[in-house]
Amino acid sequence: MTRNIQEVISQMTVEEKASLCSGLNMWQTKPVERLGIPSIVMTDGPHGLRKQGNPADMSSKTVPATCFPSGAGLASSWDRELIQEVGKALGEECQAEDVQIILGPAVNIKRSPLCGRNFEYFSEDPYLSSEMGTHHVLGVQGEGVGTSVKHYAANNQETLRNSINSIVDERTLNEIYLRCFEGPITAADAWTVMCAYNLVNGDFCSENEYLLTEVLKERWGHNGIVMTDWGAINERVKGLKAGLELEMPFVGPEHDQMIVDAVRSGELDEAVLDSAVARLLTVIFKASDARKEGFNYDKDIHHQLARRTAAECMVLLKNDENLLPLNKSQSVAVIGAFAKNPRFQGGGSSHISPTRLDAPLEVISVFAEGDVSFAEGYRIDEDTIDEALIEEAVALAASKHVAVIFAGLPDSFETEGLDRTHLDIPSSQIQLIQQVAAVQPNTVVVLSNGSPVAMPWLVDVKAVLEGYLGGQATGSAVADVLYGEVNPSGKLAETFPVRLEQTPAYLNFPGGKSEVYYGEGLFVGYRYYEAKKEQPLFPFGYGLSYTTFAYEDILVDKTHLKDTETTTVTMTVRNTGTRAGKEVVQLYVRPIESTVVRPLKELKGFTKVSLQPGEATTISFTLDKRAFAYYNTEIHDWFAETGSYEIVVGPSSVDTPLSSTVHVVSTQIPFKKVTRNTKFYELLAIPETAVFAQEAMDSSIEGLKHMGAMFAESMDDGGIAQLFEAMLEWKKYDGLRSLSGMMGSGMTEAKLEQIIDEMNAKLGLK
Amino acid sequence: MTRNIQEVISQMTVEEKASLCSGLNMWQTKPVERLGIPSIVMTDGPHGLRKQGNPADMSSKTVPATCFPSGAGLASSWDRELIQEVGKALGEECQAEDVQIILGPAVNIKRSPLCGRNFEYFSEDPYLSSEMGTHHVLGVQGEGVGTSVKHYAANNQETLRNSINSIVDERTLNEIYLRCFEGPITAADAWTVMCAYNLVNGDFCSENEYLLTEVLKERWGHNGIVMTDWGAINERVKGLKAGLELEMPFVGPEHDQMIVDAVRSGELDEAVLDSAVARLLTVIFKASDARKEGFNYDKDIHHQLARRTAAECMVLLKNDENLLPLNKSQSVAVIGAFAKNPRFQGGGSSHISPTRLDAPLEVISVFAEGDVSFAEGYRIDEDTIDEALIEEAVALAASKHVAVIFAGLPDSFETEGLDRTHLDIPSSQIQLIQQVAAVQPNTVVVLSNGSPVAMPWLVDVKAVLEGYLGGQATGSAVADVLYGEVNPSGKLAETFPVRLEQTPAYLNFPGGKSEVYYGEGLFVGYRYYEAKKEQPLFPFGYGLSYTTFAYEDILVDKTHLKDTETTTVTMTVRNTGTRAGKEVVQLYVRPIESTVVRPLKELKGFTKVSLQPGEATTISFTLDKRAFAYYNTEIHDWFAETGSYEIVVGPSSVDTPLSSTVHVVSTQIPFKKVTRNTKFYELLAIPETAVFAQEAMDSSIEGLKHMGAMFAESMDDGGIAQLFEAMLEWKKYDGLRSLSGMMGSGMTEAKLEQIIDEMNAKLGLK
Repeated sequence: MTRNIQEVISQMTVEEKASLCSGLNMWQTKPVERLGIPSIVMTDGPHGLRKQGNPADMSSKTVPATCFPSGAGLASSWDRELIQEVGKALGEECQAEDVQIILGPAVNIKRSPLCGRNFEYFSEDPYLSSEMGTHHVLGVQGEGVGTSVKHYAANNQETLRNSINSIVDERTLNEIYLRCFEGPITAADAWTVMCAYNLVNGDFCSENEYLLTEVLKERWGHNGIVMTDWGAINERVKGLKAGLELEMPFVGPEHDQMIVDAVRSGELDEAVLDSAVARLLTVIFKASDARKEGFNYDKDIHHQLARRTAAECMVLLKNDENLLPLNKSQSVAVIGAFAKNPRFQGGGSSHISPTRLDAPLEVISVFAEGDVSFAEGYRIDEDTIDEALIEEAVALAASKHVAVIFAGLPDSFETEGLDRTHLDIPSSQIQLIQQVAAVQPNTVVVLSNGSPVAMPWLVDVKAVLEGYLGGQATGSAVADVLYGEVNPSGKLAETFPVRLEQTPAYLNFPGGKSEVYYGEGLFVGYRYYEAKKEQPLFPFGYGLSYTTFAYEDILVDKTHLKDTETTTVTMTVRNTGTRAGKEVVQLYVRPIESTVVRPLKELKGFTKVSLQPGEATTISFTLDKRAFAYYNTEIHDWFAETGSYEIVVGPSSVDTPLSSTVHVVSTQIPFKKVTRNTKFYELLAIPETAVFAQEAMDSSIEGLKHMGAMFAESMDDGGIAQLFEAMLEWKKYDGLRSLSGMMGSGMTEAKLEQIIDEMNAKLGLK
Repeated sequence: MTRNIQEVISQMTVEEKASLCSGLNMWQTKPVERLGIPSIVMTDGPHGLRKQGNPADMSSKTVPATCFPSGAGLASSWDRELIQEVGKALGEECQAEDVQIILGPAVNIKRSPLCGRNFEYFSEDPYLSSEMGTHHVLGVQGEGVGTSVKHYAANNQETLRNSINSIVDERTLNEIYLRCFEGPITAADAWTVMCAYNLVNGDFCSENEYLLTEVLKERWGHNGIVMTDWGAINERVKGLKAGLELEMPFVGPEHDQMIVDAVRSGELDEAVLDSAVARLLTVIFKASDARKEGFNYDKDIHHQLARRTAAECMVLLKNDENLLPLNKSQSVAVIGAFAKNPRFQGGGSSHISPTRLDAPLEVISVFAEGDVSFAEGYRIDEDTIDEALIEEAVALAASKHVAVIFAGLPDSFETEGLDRTHLDIPSSQIQLIQQVAAVQPNTVVVLSNGSPVAMPWLVDVKAVLEGYLGGQATGSAVADVLYGEVNPSGKLAETFPVRLEQTPAYLNFPGGKSEVYYGEGLFVGYRYYEAKKEQPLFPFGYGLSYTTFAYEDILVDKTHLKDTETTTVTMTVRNTGTRAGKEVVQLYVRPIESTVVRPLKELKGFTKVSLQPGEATTISFTLDKRAFAYYNTEIHDWFAETGSYEIVVGPSSVDTPLSSTVHVVSTQIPFKKVTRNTKFYELLAIPETAVFAQEAMDSSIEGLKHMGAMFAESMDDGGIAQLFEAMLEWKKYDGLRSLSGMMGSGMTEAKLEQIIDEMNAKLGLK
């Protein structure tokens, strides 16, 4: 249905316009009946529908919905199509429940493994997060249901999330903490964005003009609306001016009235309100028009999708002597309370009522042909060691071919609203694992947790399967993987540390009571471990399979390219084992030299391929400027510096057998204007100014030698030569001003000014 | 002689005034003869006089002067009186050479052990640096000679020092990188300050109004002048406005003319120029009036002081089985080219022509009664392994009771102008040490270096003496310590890392080509190692003695104090060994809780005591607000938060046997005004607002419970109780605005505003 939004707005009173800027109740927007503006319904997500029976009552029961693996698991699949399928299923459930917007995906970066909400988030890497979020949005919105990409932005902890001020430098903010939102907005056109509770660099996200207007609306061209996280409003009118359209939930008429008053007093230009209302109406009508009345979905089919998804998400961390897959004829001791009562989702706003729930023990019993016996091993949610339970488990384990221990984090260890303070699983479980492993060499640990845990017992067991929070079908998916019905293909979307002190944000997490300083800067996740030469427990991108893959024949179609061109990297991946399997192929780019500090390498491409034994396939990635670029804070834009870049490809961030080098030539000018402090290296990289810059530098050699003379007495000839060489090299990084100074060429200030003017003219800068 | 400076200024032409704002030549200021304004002479320092024969010629030979240990060594003495004595000697030499200002001390923080100029700097700790700098200044200026505290500020690397922009957050800048300058200005009244080449947060130091005016002149009340480091000018008039008085050296008349033109055009208020000239004249006349014509000093006495000083600065790092002191009757293999040609000073502007030079080999030969033989071992400045030299050394070592190897960094490894890129000594020396130690169990290594080196051979040798760059008497001082004539008492003023990746600034040193980001923030030196639980090679404050000391009976005279009061901490230190010795007693303060991120502990007091065997002495430290305070960026001032602080005392940063706790009550308001985002915890800490804040928080409990209901389905009772408890705790850190929101008490915005106004009135804030 097409409507003339401007026409509708022209008929609205200021009060009606203002009324649209906050909710009707907890989960709905306000209707304006006389103008046919409907109310739309939102519910929590993101990996399952959380619709409360009574939208006005926060404590009312939620309707049953399919619980898919949470974000941490989904991202471990590295499978765009799969995430999109899950999104489609979510969209279908929304249609069936008459929900117009499902709040998610949650794409925030995992700055620290301690963040209590990491289980909902995808990754420590912004590109991977962005890609996962993009396909989630595409899936949901393909069904005519809106998404809300959250929590925008730099909301990387639960501690003091209502009041903490995240201090992040501009480059880090753009390269890491905003980058993860970019794809869902620009590639998937998310209808809405949810702003976070916290402040970023001194302004609440709900009134942060940089975030809401400059980046989101202007740079990324977002046409949808921004809503607050529930209760994240600060000053209503300030928020509206900064680019916030919708305050949620409704807490009373005062804020709408403040908007009305501000328009009446002239403090707020009515055009600003109109523009917000236009966006609101666009989304409301679009959502309402896409309703599919009487829509239904097949719960069994969605459960099967949840099972397939969970199996794709699991990461095989260790598998000594190919203990896995299990042989069906083996007798199995299934140990651990989680085997009966699986932990399959996290606590908080994402918590849903599943349509059904598969317990691992049940499904293992179905798969196994040998004896399957169970011992509880520990009590969920109790961190006290129950020796009797352990003894029982040890005795059972000793009597079987294999022990499979279900361990991990109880609900109380991680949830929205609370950050963890350590990486440990309950000591009762650690004891259990160690004592079982002492009697049973064939011990497998299956983990349920939303975020990395320490594994002091890792050396004691032969196999570890990371199941994350696998959703309602986690039990059957685990059995599928344990028995080889599914060959595991998940890879870690985050680094597992050995110990907390080793983590990048350790010194500044969760920060002080008013602010948290992102001092590690760009060095988040694997960027930190690699640069600091820290050995993690398991690296980013890592995961085993029951088969093996070989990487062969890398080819780059264009080894010299301008930043306006693309290059295509092609390679062959071969299944060299005896089982069919899937491989996540990862491409990283490593700047060989740079004038700014950069991570050693960054993920710039990935794909997942399925291969039969012996089968090979050709994979190609097309890289554009952004694959080589950093965020330049002079021009507030991505900038791919002229230089060489190594492209490496392989099965994980620490294993990249294929490598090739390309040379990129920038066509961008990395400054707004030539000034006395523009540096020679910048001018040398621009064809129009390169010759001048070289001549000017050459003319300074005498000045440098003069300075060098000062050191004559203190050094031998070798030392002076070394210093002089360094000074010449450094001259490149001096500003033009140095032409007129003590180490200059005797140029006058007047002449310098004239040259600067000439260069600006030549470059068309003014 | 008293003069009316204003009267002199009133007689000056604008041209004359401007002329004073830059040098006459390389080392002098311009005179104005018609008004009796003299020219004064400056020379490089800081640990010896570097006066060139012809002040107009940078390459002319320097006159002989006593070379004292450089800053890295001096600080290892932790001896204020000794540094002041050295300062006095420097002042005397200046008077003898008719020099009015000696450029130093250099107090910059050792942010990374790689900084090429660290040998001139004191410490990684700002308090220790400040104290050392203060007493250097007091010593020199006591002789009527000026100092120039340098390099102001955040100049912590040589790489690109002319153009690099140091990005440092305000709190770190004040707590670490400015703090080291504070004592020399406020306690010692340094006549001049030298601004650094680099930029700080976007502005050149030479035109950085925050540094030169806001902090230096306004906060610290500096009455002297700021001069540029040689060639550090950018825009002359901008610099003058920002608080820069003197440009050095003279590079031509253009800059003086720019000042004249700016006054004439009205761009520069002549009053600004007059104020600069008043400061210049004050210093010039003071320096000139203090000249002591015909003054002479005794070179032998100064050499003896240099010897005593060097011995006090050496740090005994290892001494297994009490190998040291040596027995005079032992036969000794003296090995290493440095034994004959000691490395005793660093390269660059601090390099001087010593009045004499003691070689270790010579003095050892005098001390020893047993046979002393020499083997060269390696060639200085060559990193190639000369097997023949090593074999000769090994053979010699095997034939003696003891081997003493002189090793360290050749000139080419560290100098002003170049940063190191690794921590290694030449591989020829490593080979030598390892091979000698393999045949001679009694091997001592004596190190000459300006900055920490890696010691892969540490486990192979029994003793290590860190000699730093010990000045012209280093050879005799080493012999004094080796033979026990002096009991070593130096302690490290910097952490020695095991490996480079472990160092705090590793990810951001030396940064990019335009800027360096001080991402480690406050966590510099031991603050980093302690917080990150990194094991260094040797910790800050560490150093052995030939005797032992016990720490006893800590007593705090006031355990509860206001921030306007002081407390005195008293303890006993006892020499429990059999030799007389000196001990550096270190006091650190550890905030027990804090609302901001703080280092675990920080040095807040130290003293050096001399004790006979069995003797004990009582030591006391008086602590004031600053011992507990951090720099609060809301009020731009030091703030000692109400709370408990542990005071620990001991022989090093990792060994603090004495501990006591005090409770400090703040009388300061840590904000400028109450706003809707002022937090409850801040109001709770102020008597006038505490009751209101508590009541307001209590009134919000229902709102919190409402929010908690949302989680009811997802958690068990224990989990909800845990979350609710956390939310109540976090409420303290929410802003007042939360009273009116979704989790508030239903307060209206109007009421909130009224309450805020009332509180501001009550606190006298407007």
